[in-house]
Amino acid sequence: MNIKITGTGSYIPDTIEKNESFHNHEFLNTDGSSINAPNEVILEKFKAITGIAERRYAKDHHNSSDLGFFAAEKAIEDAGIDPETLDYIIVAQNFGDVKSNSIQSDMLPSIATRIKHSLRIINPKCVAYDLLFGCPGWVEGVIQAKAFIQSGMAKRCLVIGTETLSRVVDKHDRDSMIFSDGAGATIIEATEEEGGILAHETASYTYDEAYYLYFGNSNNQELCRDTRYIKMDGRKIYEFALVNVPKAMKTCLDNSGVDIKDLKKIFIHQANEKMDEAILKRFYRLYRTEIPEHIMPMSIQTLGNSSVATVPTLLDLVKNNKMENHNLTKGDVVIFASVGAGMHINAIVYKY
Amino acid sequence: MNIKITGTGSYIPDTIEKNESFHNHEFLNTDGSSINAPNEVILEKFKAITGIAERRYAKDHHNSSDLGFFAAEKAIEDAGIDPETLDYIIVAQNFGDVKSNSIQSDMLPSIATRIKHSLRIINPKCVAYDLLFGCPGWVEGVIQAKAFIQSGMAKRCLVIGTETLSRVVDKHDRDSMIFSDGAGATIIEATEEEGGILAHETASYTYDEAYYLYFGNSNNQELCRDTRYIKMDGRKIYEFALVNVPKAMKTCLDNSGVDIKDLKKIFIHQANEKMDEAILKRFYRLYRTEIPEHIMPMSIQTLGNSSVATVPTLLDLVKNNKMENHNLTKGDVVIFASVGAGMHINAIVYKY
Repeated sequence: MNIKITGTGSYIPDTIEKNESFHNHEFLNTDGSSINAPNEVILEKFKAITGIAERRYAKDHHNSSDLGFFAAEKAIEDAGIDPETLDYIIVAQNFGDVKSNSIQSDMLPSIATRIKHSLRIINPKCVAYDLLFGCPGWVEGVIQAKAFIQSGMAKRCLVIGTETLSRVVDKHDRDSMIFSDGAGATIIEATEEEGGILAHETASYTYDEAYYLYFGNSNNQELCRDTRYIKMDGRKIYEFALVNVPKAMKTCLDNSGVDIKDLKKIFIHQANEKMDEAILKRFYRLYRTEIPEHIMPMSIQTLGNSSVATVPTLLDLVKNNKMENHNLTKGDVVIFASVGAGMHINAIVYKY
Repeated sequence: MNIKITGTGSYIPDTIEKNESFHNHEFLNTDGSSINAPNEVILEKFKAITGIAERRYAKDHHNSSDLGFFAAEKAIEDAGIDPETLDYIIVAQNFGDVKSNSIQSDMLPSIATRIKHSLRIINPKCVAYDLLFGCPGWVEGVIQAKAFIQSGMAKRCLVIGTETLSRVVDKHDRDSMIFSDGAGATIIEATEEEGGILAHETASYTYDEAYYLYFGNSNNQELCRDTRYIKMDGRKIYEFALVNVPKAMKTCLDNSGVDIKDLKKIFIHQANEKMDEAILKRFYRLYRTEIPEHIMPMSIQTLGNSSVATVPTLLDLVKNNKMENHNLTKGDVVIFASVGAGMHINAIVYKY
């Protein structure tokens, strides 16, 4: 028995938020002091490091569970399955539904419950739950689906990553420009077909790293101290990722028995273009091998960091030939890799 | 290979909140109108139906992750294991850390990450994640741990349920008196010892039932409409539970092959004494069998409904002979059963 992705879908919101739209923001240092540069320079520098030129924001009346539902519908259609045959709906998310202009997370009921409700699935044997695992949530959801299938508890799972990070950003923090909204979904099934998940790897570094990403106050000290936003220690994350992500990817690839030369694509979480390029460099250096052309599809320039939605959206785009110089052919071996709040890292080696 | 609970721990906050302390609350109907009865009558009626005389509230400076950490420490000590040997930390929760006098849920990083950090576990191979599944979260966490063990991904898991419901209640809603704070934790392990998990059952009813428990506005229409609290349609939940919980328990017991006469204890989620008694009655009626004495330990009178913490706390109390007329002997077969937001129902038949 193999475990394969038999359908993909993604929802990329229509609303494009260009870097220019941040031009009038009052960016501040974490201590509330002014940044010693005009916004033009701040935006230029931001783009040079992260690669982000624009990002997508959900419509005001849509919430994370809506985005996840839209992506799920597409994945179900793509797989050509009857949704009533699903054994699990696993939703990776981190902030619940945060309504536009609200500061509360609404997770009662869970996002998985809401999506199952919206999909009009009746079957009570379809178990719907939310998984909180930072940005690596979708990859981890696939690993959990694999466990359910291997243990005989499931045959077919819907794994979704959905997030509206635009609702939890601090406008006075330059990092607010990184985050975006979106959803990606996949159907994971037991199959007799060749390929599928060859190996997987997960690591949770919490001893020193637990609060590298955290919920904290605005850089604007005059704003309410009881209201918190997504915050990160970018430098520490960068250094952490550079050491640990290539290592996890290597362990995973080695466990799969696949030669580095046979690796066709790396679908990596998109948080920072420079960071991803540095990870790629280090990963190939571990094998003393040159980096092949067109190995790493990048969506960050136009989609920003949409957390759990990023990797399944990337896969969906490449599968549907929507990214230049990127396509997938049956038998191609790829890696899904992710890093984020926790700090968690995971990877899956997958034969398409 | 069998899968057993090798350690338990619970944290019951010291602060006792008696019914009398609600005496000065202004309870209102959902439409904001006054309730046509003095508070004395409201409190009396409340106690008669739910059985609740008092509940526990966490200290102001403690959050859900602190409670979970305290329970986890005890479970680890009880099992006599080295925490570095844990493969998973699974935390069932539903609202994240809600600081005292705050309305925001803080789940960045996840509660599992925070607890692993507090436990000072270094091992990155110990995967820490949060599971959102309503009140049945701890039971579902045990089922997930079983999947990881059966699929070869784990040998030893820490499964925690922790919640501070006192931080999300609407003071103007009589239902606010139901909810309480607490945490329960268990170590789940692969073992060659006889017994353990014999069968399990999970069902998610979301078609009509998804919003029986929801995040909604205060009954006091003058309070901010952007602030939401835990809300429930008690009547619908009652009717739903009475039909579906005994059915799920029966399916689970039948799958285990254990005769109803050999069942020694029913550890059921505590949300309403009358409801639990009615479920018990219906369950035994399905077998045309009389209800044995002392079959169902009840903690609701003094602990209220602490959501995901309830079942593991009950188990911990009985195991440690802290509940009159209740004890456990090696070989005893018990059921863990739970129902809550989603609506989700689950059950485990377990040989002690």
